[in-house]
Amino acid sequence: MPDSVENGLNTFSIGMAGYTFKEFTVEKTIEMMKRIGVANLSLKDFHMPMNSNQEQINAIIGKFKSAGINVYTVGVVYMKTQESVDQAFEYAKMAGVKMIVGAPDYGLLTYVEKKIKTYDFKMAIHNHGPDNPLYPNATDIWNHIKDLDARIGICIDIGHTTRDGQDPSVDVLKYSPRIYDMHIKDVDKATKDGKTVEMGRGIINIPKVVETLRKIKYSGSCSLEFEKDMTDPLPGIAESIGYLKGVMACR
Amino acid sequence: MPDSVENGLNTFSIGMAGYTFKEFTVEKTIEMMKRIGVANLSLKDFHMPMNSNQEQINAIIGKFKSAGINVYTVGVVYMKTQESVDQAFEYAKMAGVKMIVGAPDYGLLTYVEKKIKTYDFKMAIHNHGPDNPLYPNATDIWNHIKDLDARIGICIDIGHTTRDGQDPSVDVLKYSPRIYDMHIKDVDKATKDGKTVEMGRGIINIPKVVETLRKIKYSGSCSLEFEKDMTDPLPGIAESIGYLKGVMACR
Repeated sequence: MPDSVENGLNTFSIGMAGYTFKEFTVEKTIEMMKRIGVANLSLKDFHMPMNSNQEQINAIIGKFKSAGINVYTVGVVYMKTQESVDQAFEYAKMAGVKMIVGAPDYGLLTYVEKKIKTYDFKMAIHNHGPDNPLYPNATDIWNHIKDLDARIGICIDIGHTTRDGQDPSVDVLKYSPRIYDMHIKDVDKATKDGKTVEMGRGIINIPKVVETLRKIKYSGSCSLEFEKDMTDPLPGIAESIGYLKGVMACR
Repeated sequence: MPDSVENGLNTFSIGMAGYTFKEFTVEKTIEMMKRIGVANLSLKDFHMPMNSNQEQINAIIGKFKSAGINVYTVGVVYMKTQESVDQAFEYAKMAGVKMIVGAPDYGLLTYVEKKIKTYDFKMAIHNHGPDNPLYPNATDIWNHIKDLDARIGICIDIGHTTRDGQDPSVDVLKYSPRIYDMHIKDVDKATKDGKTVEMGRGIINIPKVVETLRKIKYSGSCSLEFEKDMTDPLPGIAESIGYLKGVMACR
């Protein structure tokens, strides 16, 4: 991935989770990502509808590629039917990615496993904290996937993890073999009403998270999902990315 | 200072060097500082002219105070005559600060020393790198002030220090008893044509600078002087402040 630091210390990349850019066009998203110098994106469906055809997908992915931005995964994709699982895998295939960040209903996991084997893709299941009974935390994901194909893993959202009362560093370490993606952020409270704040202004011990990622030799992306000031997020995104880089320079 | 972190580790504060806001009004400056959560400002004269009277000064300082911003010093004030030295001390006194960041002509230093004794103020002399024969680096300042009253010290600009071929961490350590203020930034080259970049994107070893500041138990301000994108600096300021906070969380 373009912005991974090849100094033998930094083995993972910095990215953006597409949800951050909910209020913006593809063009404006690209402009903001270039401004902050981040080149990896987890693409969200409002920028590329799930029912897009190959031509439409090529056009969108092409815009990012021309701007030097690597769409490394798609999602979060919620899946409630076998048809939506089928669609997600075809969508990812057309987009040229090998991993889906997803939240399939529990009852669909064996069907997802079949598709994983057919497509040879990874699926990183995303935890959504106390808001959602589906995958509240990494332990819940782990319990549902531990006996399934190892290509089914976890996209740990450290904000929702914290809001659910869990310690993200503990969970990253515990489930390290299956941590395939990360939504990194900071929150102001370790409870359901915790809100996203600029990284470093909240309660998550980011240096410890980064230290743990080094320890497990994580080689995926730490993708900032910034859910504050959604209509004017650039300063908060920039501050958060700066903070992460500052920590990465030391840990 | 409001934003110093009182955890026993962080003994210095984060601030802004006023020059960063050259293109903006006081109101817009306040708005940007609030957005990035930085509460200490080294005020530059375009926001409060040197010939202001007490009433005018109260009005400006009052605006910052009401917004929770602490004007902790004024400058950089260039002084070429005794009258301008007189003016600078009266200006600082009216502004209610006890330190001037200055660049008095070499020939005025003994006069400055007299004023220091009268007012019981500090003066932190600012180095301007290879652009300016006046105080190119901290060594030059030190050589001119080492035998003068100890209230005359250094505002080390780590960008100009680097552009002058010096190592800011070495200079901070060497001249530690007289480091009273700091303009912190990053630059892309260690030569005269080096330009400011977002902290962490350049060549200065910021973790080492912060480590050195801890070592000398620095208790002043690290004030970001961001001299890039002067008409649209907020994202770069935010990224730089984030980076500094990230490093400070680890070093």
